[in-house]
Amino acid sequence: GLVRRQLNEVIHEQLEKMMDGTSPDYALYTGGARIIPHLTTRDYEVWPSKSYQVLWGLLTRKNVIKSNKASTVITPSVNVGECWCFNGTEGQIAIRLSRSIFVTHITYHHIGRQVSIDPISSAPKDFELWGANKKKERKNEIEYSDDFVHFLGNYQYDISGRPAQIFNVPDSIAMNNKRVRSIMMKVHSNHENPQFTCLYRLQVHGVNPL
Amino acid sequence: GLVRRQLNEVIHEQLEKMMDGTSPDYALYTGGARIIPHLTTRDYEVWPSKSYQVLWGLLTRKNVIKSNKASTVITPSVNVGECWCFNGTEGQIAIRLSRSIFVTHITYHHIGRQVSIDPISSAPKDFELWGANKKKERKNEIEYSDDFVHFLGNYQYDISGRPAQIFNVPDSIAMNNKRVRSIMMKVHSNHENPQFTCLYRLQVHGVNPL
Amino acid sequence: GLVRRQLNEVIHEQLEKMMDGTSPDYALYTGGARIIPHLTTRDYEVWPSKSYQVLWGLLTRKNVIKSNKASTVITPSVNVGECWCFNGTEGQIAIRLSRSIFVTHITYHHIGRQVSIDPISSAPKDFELWGANKKKERKNEIEYSDDFVHFLGNYQYDISGRPAQIFNVPDSIAMNNKRVRSIMMKVHSNHENPQFTCLYRLQVHGVNPL
Ligand SMILES: [K+]
Ligand SMILES: [K+]
Ligand SMILES: [K+]
Repeated sequence: GLVRRQLNEVIHEQLEKMMDGTSPDYALYTGGARIIPHLTTRDYEVWPSKSYQVLWGLLTRKNVIKSNKASTVITPSVNVGECWCFNGTEGQIAIRLSRSIFVTHITYHHIGRQVSIDPISSAPKDFELWGANKKKERKNEIEYSDDFVHFLGNYQYDISGRPAQIFNVPDSIAMNNKRVRSIMMKVHSNHENPQFTCLYRLQVHGVNPL
Repeated sequence: GLVRRQLNEVIHEQLEKMMDGTSPDYALYTGGARIIPHLTTRDYEVWPSKSYQVLWGLLTRKNVIKSNKASTVITPSVNVGECWCFNGTEGQIAIRLSRSIFVTHITYHHIGRQVSIDPISSAPKDFELWGANKKKERKNEIEYSDDFVHFLGNYQYDISGRPAQIFNVPDSIAMNNKRVRSIMMKVHSNHENPQFTCLYRLQVHGVNPL
Repeated sequence: GLVRRQLNEVIHEQLEKMMDGTSPDYALYTGGARIIPHLTTRDYEVWPSKSYQVLWGLLTRKNVIKSNKASTVITPSVNVGECWCFNGTEGQIAIRLSRSIFVTHITYHHIGRQVSIDPISSAPKDFELWGANKKKERKNEIEYSDDFVHFLGNYQYDISGRPAQIFNVPDSIAMNNKRVRSIMMKVHSNHENPQFTCLYRLQVHGVNPL
């Protein structure tokens, strides 16, 4: 058996490891990743039904319910409500990563069932990942094209599992894997919320050989 | 006894549980809760004593010491100074919750003694909780009245205890408990700071039957 | 050996201790500490090379790469990119602490190697600490002078060690230690990045007798 002092050391060590993190997140906003707006679904919005309220909403934004912006998905904190939502059950988010990488796995992190103030039916269910990379030179700047031609797999988020779920790119795909600079998450269904789907946090991991 | 590998697993699991949280906080700002300004005590302010400095302060806000706003109390981070303060030892904060609930318990979280840069005499001591709920229809919108008529108990925060303290609504009160949409924390005393009282974080927990 | 329930309690307790923190950070921004701008090295900036782009950059800040501001160093979060950078390998940051203290130790916290998206060559290596305190009265306000005359030691940050490293002020220095209100970290070298050096987080600990 272990004595108390040893136990404290093991706990401390394990905790520090978890706090420090284990691999870089190439989709992190503060690390330089950015949302590609024209390839990302529009934010969820609810406008009031009366016409005079719509006019009032246009002028003042009052009585208009609006999602946080999509960059919330590449920002670490995952308190209730710190998510981006889109209308309905199908939508996509495109992210220019901070580096061009070979994607090995991603983490999708939703809030836990037990802290949610609603049933978490708005969590994503089936989704695809795609990558893009083609460089073009334009006006002396390197630009990455928006052709998401590299398929990176089909995945499913399980709301009865842990809040943060890791999805590994299957070997069959990884073997033919292309280096990508941008990634797209295409959501095909959610957990039975017909009105909107919300994403809390996406992390993208991989290898970045020089 | 346990071997190291098993121990690491247990620690990891326990840690994830703590990180994920255990029950919804219906007072969380990002979840939709909001401060009710006209029922909340004015922010703590110190103005300079010289009249020309007061004038200068009015124009520029320079030399005026001012508390963070009250919504700081329903925002998770609790680093030193991330609190809302009011003048003296008595004051109140009113919060419109994100849902209407039967309140079961609350958590008040102050900074720890050991990280505070001052004696934590400005922490709240005796306080009451009240709830409000009456709906009224006004201009096609449901509005909740401000009549805090549901008494939810007397409590005392102990500065020699842990920073985050859970207060359960007593059974005698819970039995007659009404569903409430707003909550008020009325502070009656602090830990002997005559000038101001500061609140770091209030979480409100309960049941939200459909 | 320990049974599972006891183990969970020990883990919980240890975890809460780590979360609560152990000693005040007198350099924390939210606690009242502030950067002294005229004694702090200029932020890292990269301007485009073409003259028309420079003009464009002056007007719009587009194509100009600019570091976060220096107060990032006294702000807790240390996600990748949440740092302040200066040009080259030598620079300094001056901080007016929240209280005047006898400095006992400091913590410098960089991101971990394993989560960094680049080799962490931009981390500081050799650095000195200096303190300042002389009060002067000016226009009815107490002001602290900028004479950093109190030497507080030479230190070295080890990038193969843990992300957060504690540096104790040596006894020989502490014995003659003066109470200081401001502190300066003078960086003399980094881990072989010739272009820029980045600082993530500096915490300053000490004794604050009344
Ligand atoms: K988020
Ligand atoms: K707070
Ligand atoms: K920082």
